[in-house]
Order: sequence, then C-alpha cells, then structure tokens
Amino acid sequence: MANPTLEELTQDPNYWMQGFPPTKEQIVRFNDGSYYDWPKLRWSFSNIQQLVPTKSFSRGPESARELKHGPTLDLENTTVTTTFGETLTWQDALSSTCTDSIAVLHAGKLVHEAYFGASSPSKPHILQSANKSFVGTIAECLIDEGKLCEHAPVTELIPELAQSAWADATVRQVMDMQINMAFHEDYTDPKSEIWRFLRAMGMAPHKSGTTPESIADVLPNIQSGGVHGEVFAYREPNIFVLGWLVRRAGNKDLATQVSEKIWQNIGAERDGYYMLDDAGSETTCSTTLRDLLRFGELMRLQGKVGDKQVIPKRVIDSIFAGGDLAKFARGQTPIPKVPTLKNWSYRSQWWIRHLQDRICPVARGAHGQVLYIDPANELVIARFGSNKQSPSSALDHIMWPMVDLITERVLTVQG
Amino acid sequence: MANPTLEELTQDPNYWMQGFPPTKEQIVRFNDGSYYDWPKLRWSFSNIQQLVPTKSFSRGPESARELKHGPTLDLENTTVTTTFGETLTWQDALSSTCTDSIAVLHAGKLVHEAYFGASSPSKPHILQSANKSFVGTIAECLIDEGKLCEHAPVTELIPELAQSAWADATVRQVMDMQINMAFHEDYTDPKSEIWRFLRAMGMAPHKSGTTPESIADVLPNIQSGGVHGEVFAYREPNIFVLGWLVRRAGNKDLATQVSEKIWQNIGAERDGYYMLDDAGSETTCSTTLRDLLRFGELMRLQGKVGDKQVIPKRVIDSIFAGGDLAKFARGQTPIPKVPTLKNWSYRSQWWIRHLQDRICPVARGAHGQVLYIDPANELVIARFGSNKQSPSSALDHIMWPMVDLITERVLTVQG
Repeated sequence: MANPTLEELTQDPNYWMQGFPPTKEQIVRFNDGSYYDWPKLRWSFSNIQQLVPTKSFSRGPESARELKHGPTLDLENTTVTTTFGETLTWQDALSSTCTDSIAVLHAGKLVHEAYFGASSPSKPHILQSANKSFVGTIAECLIDEGKLCEHAPVTELIPELAQSAWADATVRQVMDMQINMAFHEDYTDPKSEIWRFLRAMGMAPHKSGTTPESIADVLPNIQSGGVHGEVFAYREPNIFVLGWLVRRAGNKDLATQVSEKIWQNIGAERDGYYMLDDAGSETTCSTTLRDLLRFGELMRLQGKVGDKQVIPKRVIDSIFAGGDLAKFARGQTPIPKVPTLKNWSYRSQWWIRHLQDRICPVARGAHGQVLYIDPANELVIARFGSNKQSPSSALDHIMWPMVDLITERVLTVQG
Repeated sequence: MANPTLEELTQDPNYWMQGFPPTKEQIVRFNDGSYYDWPKLRWSFSNIQQLVPTKSFSRGPESARELKHGPTLDLENTTVTTTFGETLTWQDALSSTCTDSIAVLHAGKLVHEAYFGASSPSKPHILQSANKSFVGTIAECLIDEGKLCEHAPVTELIPELAQSAWADATVRQVMDMQINMAFHEDYTDPKSEIWRFLRAMGMAPHKSGTTPESIADVLPNIQSGGVHGEVFAYREPNIFVLGWLVRRAGNKDLATQVSEKIWQNIGAERDGYYMLDDAGSETTCSTTLRDLLRFGELMRLQGKVGDKQVIPKRVIDSIFAGGDLAKFARGQTPIPKVPTLKNWSYRSQWWIRHLQDRICPVARGAHGQVLYIDPANELVIARFGSNKQSPSSALDHIMWPMVDLITERVLTVQG
C-alpha cells in the first residue's frame, strides 16, 4: 500500500500535534489563527485547553455516576433521507457532517456511542453555542432563587450598559434573544462586527499593535436597532450580557456556578473548562460527550438525579414551556439552500422544537454541536462535530433527519 | 477605618482578577509578561490555567481518597530559629516566605492544613521544579519496566541530540543532573541563556518579531562544557531531555503517563495540569496541595496505596538510596548570604536530605514549592509559596528550620 499523501494525512484529525515532539507542519497554534482553519480545527475542537487559557469547572470529589449500557442501537445499515430528499448511508451522514462523536441515552441507558477523529470518551470537546443553554438554565435557577428578576431592566445589575442597545431591555428579552441591536453578525465577512467581538472573546487572536479588548469593553458600545421584544434575533452579544447578569446576580464566576449547580450534581466523569476573554471572563466551554449526555438526562428527568432534585422543577417547566412561535418565525432569515426551522421557538437560551405531540429542547452550537432532549420518548442525544462550515443551520437539512431516524429506530427496536 | 491604599491592596493576592469584570488595573496577563511580576505572581501561581495553554492529567472516574484528620498540630505559638540565628514567630515565618499553603500528614492523617492569599484546597498551584520529581519517578518506573535503560546513551532514543551536550551522556547522568553543559543559568541576568529557554518553554512571552521556538528546537544547540558524571550540576535543560526520553520510552505524552502511573492511583481530588511549550509539550505542572500530599504519602509508603502496589518497590528503593554526596558537595556554588546544603545528594530528580538517622527525599521548586518525605517519622509535608525571589536556595535558611520544627512538634505532641 502506498504511503498516504500529506493531503490525505492532514484530513485525519489525528495527524496534528502527534509525536514527541510533533513536526513543524503538525503544530497547531492559537496565536497565528491556524487553530480555527479547517481541517486543523478538527483537532483543535477536542483540545482547546492546549491552545488557550481556560478555567475549569470541577466535578467535585465524588466518583462519576456510571452510564449503564442498554441494548445496542445498531445504525450501521440505516439510511438518512435529508430535507432535500437526498439519501445517505448512516456512515456517509456521519462523515459528511464531520461528526466527532455521537451518543444516545434511551430510558437512561447508553444504547449507542461512537467516537471519530481526534475525539475520545475522556476528552472534552468544545460546545460552541450549546454552552448558552448552561447559562440560560443557571439564569432560570437564579430567577427561582429570587436573585435575578426576569422583568427587571438589564441596567439594574449592569449600569455600564446604560448607553447601549440594552439600555431599555429586560432580562427576559436577553434570555430569549429578542434584543434589537445594530450588530452585523456575518462570520464570512472580515469587516463584520462579529470579528472585533470574537477577538475580545479570545476566540480569534488580537491584531498586533492593537490594545486587547475584553467583552466588557465592547458590549457598552453596541447600539440599539429599534424596539426590543418583537422578533427573535439570535445575536452573540446577548449571551455575554446574560453571563454578566448571571455573574452579578449569583456573585460568582460562571465556572463556579456551573460546577455548583450542575457539574457536581450529575456525576460527571471529567471537569469541564471554559475559554476566557482577555479579562479572564468565561466565554464558551468544553465537556466530554458523556457529561453532556448526563446534563441532558438531568433535563429529561425534570431536574432530578436519582431521588435528588438538583435543578428546581419550576426551572425545567419554564424552559419546556417553550418560547413564542410567531416571534421565532419572524426572526428566521431565509438563507439560500438552507431550510428554515418551522415550528421552533427559543426560550432561555434553548432552541425548542415543537412537534405535533411533544416538545424537545435543543442546545446547539456552531460546526455541529447538539444536545437533543425528547422526554416523551425517554431520549437524549448528544453529538459533537467539526464541520467545515460554521453555522448550525448549514447542517439542519441532515441533522434533524438523523435525530428522527435515531428516534424511530429506538422506538421500533427497543419499544 | 481608612480604605486600603492601592499599594496595600495589590499586596493582597486576592486583589487581582476580582469582580465581574475586573478593572484594567486588576487584570493579569501572560502576553505582556506581567503574570510573573511580584506581587501579581502571587495570584498567577494559583491560576496558571487561566493564563496559558495547559494539558490536564486526569484523576480518573473514581471518588477521591479521603484524607482523614488526625489530632490538630498547633503551630501558632511556636518560633522558628533560622540558620542565621534569627528568631521568627510561626506567622512571621509563613508570611516572610510568602507561603500560599502548607499541610502536614502524620501517620497518614492530616494534622495541619492552612491556606493563604489566592490559594485554596481545591485550586491547583504551580509546582515549578518540584514537578521534576514526578518525571524522575516515572523514568525510574520505565527503567523497572525495561523500557528505558539507565546506562544507555541519551542519543539511542533521541538521535536529535547527537551534536549537543548530551551526545556522550547516559540516561542516568541526565536523571541525576551530572551533565557538564555550556549553559548560563542566571535568572537575574536578562542576557542569560535561560531566558531564551524560558521563552521556548512557554514560561516567558515570545519577543515580538521572533519565530517561536519550542524546547526541542533549543536543546540540540546546547553544547558540552566538558566531562559528564563528575559533578552535580543542576541545570534546567536536563529535565526536558529526561521528559523527551520518558515520552519516547513510554510512547505517551507526559500528562498521560502521570495520570496512568500516579494520579489515577492515589485517589486525587482534582486533575492536575501541565503548562506547555510552543509545540504543545509539557513543561511544569500544577496540582492541589492535598494531591501533592497524596503523592508524598505514596512515596512514604514505598509505592503502596492501601494494599495496592502502585509504584514498584524497586523504584522507591532506587530513589531512597540517594545520590553521591561528594559529587553533590562539589556542585554547590557558594552564594553570598545563602547557606549551602550540607549532606545532601540528588537522585532521579529528587533532592535527598541525608540526616544522621534517616534519609528524606524532597521535591522542590522555585519560589518556595516543597514536598518533604520523612518515612522514619511517618511524616509528609507539602508547601506552596510565591516568594519574591526565585531560587529555592533563597529560602533554605528558613525552610529547613520550619520543617524541623514541624517534625519536632509532631514527635513531641503526637508521639
């Protein structure tokens, strides 16, 4: 057999950073921006801690809660029919979406689990925006504890935002992404404001010669685009306003609150960790796939782990109530060759899928990160990816058919 | 009471990086080099993960092994007499050496534990060169497994070093720091070769406009200074040659080997993590004080945790045999106002204190990191610090009297 070509090798996520030491060509760095170039990002997404400063959230001193295995859900010989009518084998569906890992819990038992590329059961993988649902859930907890008021103006806790888009916004409008802001969020346009924001977030390197900015420097300068509360408008800056609210209301950093409210209670196997902005504030996090499943299972079981009510039931109810379908529909910008999400809503940093007979909350993030919760079918699906294209929507035509296939197979085979 | 002045505030390690977000003045960064400025380093040493890329070593899925409390060893009203005859209260001894934390195990029970400044029981603290003893212990394990030969030339595993100081060196000479190299290691001299080395190590920021170098780029260019094996010569580059040997012999990175051989077996409470050089190779690590104690207890009990032989007894025996006293004595450079270590030796990256009736291995690192093991007295002492001066030797006149005071008190009070 011929040796693989360099091109073939570099498609393999395990090519990068191998050997003692790796060769110059194999090195992935943050500071030159290469960590985010595909295919390097296929390695980066499972190894963020090795690239940038991070802050761990502890699973506590206890042993991990074992994920018991159920009867194996075999998906090898299935086919997926995409929204556009294309038929793919399961393997092609996995590889064409650059799947790093996927696992399924049914009735609390692990029935399917697979890892590809640079991924492994013990390695945390970046959640991208799926982390927003952690923050939204904690915000709901703080509301339940009376530490945060959903109807209060944002500026009550963050006077620094008095001259910004959030000057006349409520906490709830931030939680539900209904802020009308003048913020151009086009990742494909280098002039887009999102890039200044990504640099401040510590997700893109600072330009040399510029003063580092943190998120708290950038947010007060984002201006209003009109009336809030009318349309779902998914914009990155909102999650950082919410994170700021959560830190001030809970009087602890985000990592500590995630640890205390979630990670120490779900029997996590590994600490997770946050990336940091230039002032050391948490941005997005990495967790193992199994621990993400455990978080999904906590949501499925209405906040309970065993007999212990870890997250108040009122918090779960608020999220499962879903958001406003009409406002969500108005906020869906049609993109060529991308299906819009029909009968979805957005609530407390969760995407809510409204099906005929049930409601399924979804945490999702760029490049294909998904946590899907379907309590009616006792189902939790978690999936990490490193897709070439960033937007989650670029995978919608294939992701939901995959989820529906799993659901159908689980119900058919396992009853 | 008057408000504290800024100067007073900044002496407090908890001044830095506080608030949501911290003020500009409170921000500590790696890239501007400020993280290593005193007093900022007092915060940095307990928060390295938030400053630079790191790589965790897992404690595994099990629960932590509880450190049971014994009768409290009260040191409040004791005094320490330094090597120079000065008398200090215990509190003054702690504060004048910038102690971050200190804890004592006697007969396996925690009899004393105290945290100061930015330190806490759950926070990993940098070990600096105390990490060398982890690597030395693993090297001894690999020798025991037949994967590394102590008499073999270094170049057998690392041909890249054929034109360097290590061209004619053996593995054992590296382990025992008996390499004669032309390497000027003066941390106070900005022209010293140690600074190029520290930049390659990822412990000092790269100069702008220079190409980043990793350790593996720098080591092959360090030249011989003469015959090896005659004098103890404590030089930083040796530990990276040993780390390189350990990676190649064990065919795994250092973090994985520390996890598999030590961290998963001692009932650690937290994952530890390594700092990384520019090619992603591990340099020094951070652990919690309690987990460092657990490692010390493993050594005290000849490699056993409970009934399980975790580290082979032959490995422990090799370290406890100690090194060559005469070679060590010849390698002690007299420094004004610093006592030389008399009746010490160096073996497998452990400092060995030879007392009249017993041998005590010590892991130690810059700015006051100490792990002290005294099996004859069933004693393990761990101590983290952030002393203003870097060299361990700057604290010797007070550190060993403190250790001896603890020993005496434990024996007197607890018998």
